[in-house]
Amino acid sequence: MVDIATRVYNHNWKIDPIVRSLIDTDFYKLLMCQFVFHRKPDVNVTFSLINRTKSVRLADLVEEKEVREQLDHIRTLRLSRGESTWLRGNMFYGKRQMFTPEFMEWFEQLQLPPYHLEKRDGQYELTFEGKWPEVMLWEIPALAVLMELRARAVLRHMGRFELQVLYARAMTRVWDKVERLRRLEGLKLADFGTRRRHSFLWQDWCVQALIEGLGDKFIGTSNCLIAMRREVEAIGTNAHELPMVYAALAETDEELREAPYKVLEEWHEEHEGNLRIILPDTFGTRQFLERAPDWLAGWTGIRIDSGDPFEGGETAIAWWKSRGQDPRQKLLIFSDGLDVDLIEKLYERFHGRVRLSFGWGTLLTNDFRGLVKDDALAPFSLVCKAVAANGRPTVKLSDNPRKAMGPKEQIERYKRVFGVGEQVEREVVV
Amino acid sequence: MVDIATRVYNHNWKIDPIVRSLIDTDFYKLLMCQFVFHRKPDVNVTFSLINRTKSVRLADLVEEKEVREQLDHIRTLRLSRGESTWLRGNMFYGKRQMFTPEFMEWFEQLQLPPYHLEKRDGQYELTFEGKWPEVMLWEIPALAVLMELRARAVLRHMGRFELQVLYARAMTRVWDKVERLRRLEGLKLADFGTRRRHSFLWQDWCVQALIEGLGDKFIGTSNCLIAMRREVEAIGTNAHELPMVYAALAETDEELREAPYKVLEEWHEEHEGNLRIILPDTFGTRQFLERAPDWLAGWTGIRIDSGDPFEGGETAIAWWKSRGQDPRQKLLIFSDGLDVDLIEKLYERFHGRVRLSFGWGTLLTNDFRGLVKDDALAPFSLVCKAVAANGRPTVKLSDNPRKAMGPKEQIERYKRVFGVGEQVEREVVV
Repeated sequence: MVDIATRVYNHNWKIDPIVRSLIDTDFYKLLMCQFVFHRKPDVNVTFSLINRTKSVRLADLVEEKEVREQLDHIRTLRLSRGESTWLRGNMFYGKRQMFTPEFMEWFEQLQLPPYHLEKRDGQYELTFEGKWPEVMLWEIPALAVLMELRARAVLRHMGRFELQVLYARAMTRVWDKVERLRRLEGLKLADFGTRRRHSFLWQDWCVQALIEGLGDKFIGTSNCLIAMRREVEAIGTNAHELPMVYAALAETDEELREAPYKVLEEWHEEHEGNLRIILPDTFGTRQFLERAPDWLAGWTGIRIDSGDPFEGGETAIAWWKSRGQDPRQKLLIFSDGLDVDLIEKLYERFHGRVRLSFGWGTLLTNDFRGLVKDDALAPFSLVCKAVAANGRPTVKLSDNPRKAMGPKEQIERYKRVFGVGEQVEREVVV
Repeated sequence: MVDIATRVYNHNWKIDPIVRSLIDTDFYKLLMCQFVFHRKPDVNVTFSLINRTKSVRLADLVEEKEVREQLDHIRTLRLSRGESTWLRGNMFYGKRQMFTPEFMEWFEQLQLPPYHLEKRDGQYELTFEGKWPEVMLWEIPALAVLMELRARAVLRHMGRFELQVLYARAMTRVWDKVERLRRLEGLKLADFGTRRRHSFLWQDWCVQALIEGLGDKFIGTSNCLIAMRREVEAIGTNAHELPMVYAALAETDEELREAPYKVLEEWHEEHEGNLRIILPDTFGTRQFLERAPDWLAGWTGIRIDSGDPFEGGETAIAWWKSRGQDPRQKLLIFSDGLDVDLIEKLYERFHGRVRLSFGWGTLLTNDFRGLVKDDALAPFSLVCKAVAANGRPTVKLSDNPRKAMGPKEQIERYKRVFGVGEQVEREVVV
């Protein structure tokens, strides 16, 4: 039976919006946003969209008009009453009222700030400038829009059954992965795939498949809207933008060296328990840990987001031991370029030695590799990062030089200040 | 948006009917039914359902109550006005009014006759007795009901996503086959998969996938309801039941020997062109062709439905040549246990030497092999055959002794009368 109302409603769409909610974003963005709202509300930042996969010429694939329509639509969004109620009343990581009334009042009024879009060399240059707490919320929706518009451009020319079979193949692939993962005793795994997802509906499908297929091995999703609708945990803590911006604001080399610890000191004041997760790689993991104050060793865990993950895990364990901590009480979260093979290998290496958790991103929510001609749906490495703070450029070194960002002379300065030596290059898949 | 009406409607079903139309059957059944209606309306026949795959214990898997509900539902069906209009007005094989007004008037009044159902040794014994034109129409719906009830019994315990992924895998498999088949230049292929389909909806999906995926390489479906709804050709001619019943009615060995030719002589009077297809294997192909009258060599084609299909094809070509016919003008239809590998090999062997066509059955509409635990959805060899006519047992020899049917002493008599020697056994997959 045709549902006439739905069909007519669909006809009436001017666009088919990709992002339909301000909380269709990663949970850690909201945690960081509140942190920044409290501590650095007036810092001016610039975020910029960067396609690290130059071979995917986005501006040739996707019309500028479509990009503007989607971004303009996001600017019409406001936090809805139900979303606000959920953020105010839901328990996150065992804690109620994670978000303060002051922050919620601000968020309820929020409209995302204007964007600046132009084409250059077959790519879009998309930048956002303004107050840090507002601008930072563009990152995830901007990425999701570009990823999904590219997918739509490829899908537009496919037949009805061809499409159905494409999704059948993608579903089969996800489920094959689920069937492998559920063999891992005591696995803890979360969806981290919002930013580079194939589409919203597809991410939502993947999460539901994980709920059914993994049972309590699936601990939740980074996506707030999906967490709310599917009644699972919202997962996430903090990201590189905090130390990057704090570092950019430093006046001296000494302040620069202390900036990453300052961020975590302030975070420590705001949060406890599972939210005390160290992301050590912004300016190189090894030096960061060596110089870390002892109170950091008391934190719950470490997230490994670049470099060789086996090495990263061993480094973390050795560091905890060196600080008199029992690694078996500590949480290691892997979140960089994961797929089932790597999850299995990391599980094999670390299971039983530490508490273990996986943040599975792009290869969960966007593994369409090899499914269409010319591999035109393969995921690619699109990022949206803080590139400046109060007029000064930001820098990221990471544990993989290919993920480094910032002006060359600043990268050299940071390497000197943070004492980073030779690093091993690793291919960036997604 | 939830379509409330559909949901409530679905709740109101007492059963979820498997067969919802009297034309949810094979087209050749209707052609043969009209033939019998004209020529042998008063012959009494018994049809009996036989599960050749004893390891599938249907009576343990499916409740008797369910079988009765489905069969009772079929007995409530009447030809609908739209179905009647389509049968009366549609062009079949280029001919309008394929069905005479007398036959249509009879069909419009038809209710399928009672059935007899009991359990024995973990199997159902399902028999139908009565006038040939009525009883014969039970064959296809009875098979479809048992096949689908077995599938439903397996699917009942699966989760929502597990189910979706099951179908995703099955769709992927069908489409992989489509992608291989569409490479075959000039391929002609029809769906013959009604009787042992996984379900009606699944067959309908498969047909639509073939329409989109194969284009004009897909020539139609044997299923009348799907042919009507999807606006493709209804495909089929005649089957073993005609010579089997004619043979059983023969009074002498001489009449028996002539019975298969008598059927075709009468068929010849009714039909022309593409409907003149010889099914030569009922009592052994080689002897049948050797003794065939010359006018049979003028027919359009031969259908190969048992035995080694390569040998069968070569036999047919040699026979046409021996009768002064040009094989390139003749049609070879393969319809026994086909899947893509075999279709490709047969195409390779015969393409260009004859006109070629494939009737793809169970492994099109029911290839769920290996997709669930214990292979519980693998198709199995269920048949429903005329076992008696006017109180005498029927016999089928076929070109594969494993497909032979009938009382042992009658099989021996038929082998003697038809001069059938040694035959090679072949595994019956479906």
